[in-house]
Amino acid sequence: MQDQDRNTNQAMAALRAAIRAGDYSGHTAGLAPAKLQCNIAILPAAFALDFLRFCLRNPKPCPIVGVGETGDPSLPTLGPDIDIRHDLPRYRLYRDGKFAEEVTDIAAHWQGDMVTVALGCSFTFERALIAAGIPMRHVDQNLTVPMYRTGLPLEQGGMFGGTMVVSMRPLRGGDVPRAVEICARYPAAHGAPVHVGDPAAIGIAALDQPDWGEAVAVKPDEVPVFWACGVTSQNALLSAGIPLVITHAPGHMLISDIDEDAATPIWKP
Amino acid sequence: MQDQDRNTNQAMAALRAAIRAGDYSGHTAGLAPAKLQCNIAILPAAFALDFLRFCLRNPKPCPIVGVGETGDPSLPTLGPDIDIRHDLPRYRLYRDGKFAEEVTDIAAHWQGDMVTVALGCSFTFERALIAAGIPMRHVDQNLTVPMYRTGLPLEQGGMFGGTMVVSMRPLRGGDVPRAVEICARYPAAHGAPVHVGDPAAIGIAALDQPDWGEAVAVKPDEVPVFWACGVTSQNALLSAGIPLVITHAPGHMLISDIDEDAATPIWKP
Repeated sequence: MQDQDRNTNQAMAALRAAIRAGDYSGHTAGLAPAKLQCNIAILPAAFALDFLRFCLRNPKPCPIVGVGETGDPSLPTLGPDIDIRHDLPRYRLYRDGKFAEEVTDIAAHWQGDMVTVALGCSFTFERALIAAGIPMRHVDQNLTVPMYRTGLPLEQGGMFGGTMVVSMRPLRGGDVPRAVEICARYPAAHGAPVHVGDPAAIGIAALDQPDWGEAVAVKPDEVPVFWACGVTSQNALLSAGIPLVITHAPGHMLISDIDEDAATPIWKP
Repeated sequence: MQDQDRNTNQAMAALRAAIRAGDYSGHTAGLAPAKLQCNIAILPAAFALDFLRFCLRNPKPCPIVGVGETGDPSLPTLGPDIDIRHDLPRYRLYRDGKFAEEVTDIAAHWQGDMVTVALGCSFTFERALIAAGIPMRHVDQNLTVPMYRTGLPLEQGGMFGGTMVVSMRPLRGGDVPRAVEICARYPAAHGAPVHVGDPAAIGIAALDQPDWGEAVAVKPDEVPVFWACGVTSQNALLSAGIPLVITHAPGHMLISDIDEDAATPIWKP
C-alpha cells in the first residue's frame, strides 16, 4: 500500500511536470486515479464574490473545492506546488462571453486581479461507479459524456443564474439505487443524480442530440440517469458576458493533490 | 407525519413572528427541532470575498450554508421570508474588532454594503446524538457548551486566519465511534469531531477553564471529544479588526426553514 502511494505520487509529479512544461496537452480522464480532479474558472476579482455566491447556492452543479487569492496563481489548499497558469493541459479563453481561443498555458494572459475557483468533477464518481462494477458507456466507447441544457432553474447568485446543464449516463435499472448511494458519498463531485428517466420531464427534447459531448445509446433494459454538470458554471459565466474568463478545456482538468476520498478537500503536508 | 409537519411549520412561523416583533429574545437551543439553525456573520462587502475564501478553506469550523446579496437582508436559499435585520433573537455588534453592544434588532445598524454569511451550527449534531441515546452533559445540566482556543492552525484566507476554536463534550468511550459516524453525516454542521482525548495535544491547558461557555465534568469512564466550533469564524473576524461586524449572540441563532437532514441546504417552495 505504501509502495502504491509512492508510485502514485511519483506518477503525479511526472505528469504535472509534463503538463507544466507543455509536453502533455491531452485530456485527464483516467489519469492520476484517486486524485481529485477539478473544473477551473478564472475570473476578475470584481465578479468573484457574485460567482462564489452563485456556486454556494447551486452546490450540486457547482461544488467549490478551492479558491485562490486575488492575483495569486497558487492553490495551496489543493496542493503544495500548483501554478494555475501552467498546470492545466489546455485552457479556453472567453472574452465578453464569447469563445476567443484555446491555449496550453495562460502566463501571458494572467492579470493581477484574477481569482481562480476550482469545482469538483464527474471523474471522481465515475471512477467509484466503475470500481463498483457499474459500467460507463461513454468510457467504454471512448466518447465524451453527453451533456444537455435543461429547464431546471438555478438559484440566482448576484449576476449569475440560468438553468442547469446535466450529463447523462445510461444505467441498468438494477444498478440505479447503488449508483445513487455511491454518488451521494461525493458531494464535492456533483453528488447523487438529479433525475432518473424521462428526459422531457427536465426539458431535454432529444437524447441523441446533446448540447455538448457525444450521444450514447440507451438500451431497452436501461434508464437514462442525469447528473448536475460542471458546464453549468461555465454557461453562467459566459451568459454574464464578463470581460475575460479562463476555464479548463472540456476534459482537461486540474489534477489536485487531494485524495478523492478525503472527507475535507484541504491539502495537508 | 403530515400533521406533524404542519404543526412544526405553524410553530416555526409563530416563533419567527415573535422573534421578529422583539417578543422573544432568548436562546434557540432545542427550538424548532429538525430545522437547520445557523451562526450568522454580517460584514461589509469589501471583506466578504476574503471571508468566504477563509470559510471555504476551513469547512469544519466554518461550513457555509447561505450567503446574502450585498445590501439585501433576505436569505432566500434558507427560507422564503427571512429578514436578517429582525430574525435573530439577539445580536452582537463589534466595531474595529472590539465588542460594542448587544441588541435585539439591527434595522438601525443595517448598511447598503452589508453581506450576511450563515454557517451551520452544533445544535444539528447534538440533536442527532441525543436522538441516538448519546447524552450531552451541558444540555442535561443546562449549561453553555465549553469552548476553547487551540493550537490547531487554520488555513489563511485573505486577511483572515488564526487558530481553531473547539467545543468539548464528554462521551463514554463506547459511544465515541457511533458519535463520530453520526456527526460525519452533517458536514454542514461541523461534521465529525477533530480530536478525541488529550486536551494538551491540541494546545488546551485546562479543561476546567474554557475560553467561552461553562466547564462540564469529564467522568472516569469518559473521554473529552472536541468538535470544530463556529466561534472560530467570529474570532477570525474580530482579529482582523474590520470596522463593523454583526454576529448572533452566542446560542441565539437564525432558525432557517431548511430541514437538518436535507442533502443540500437550499430552500425549495
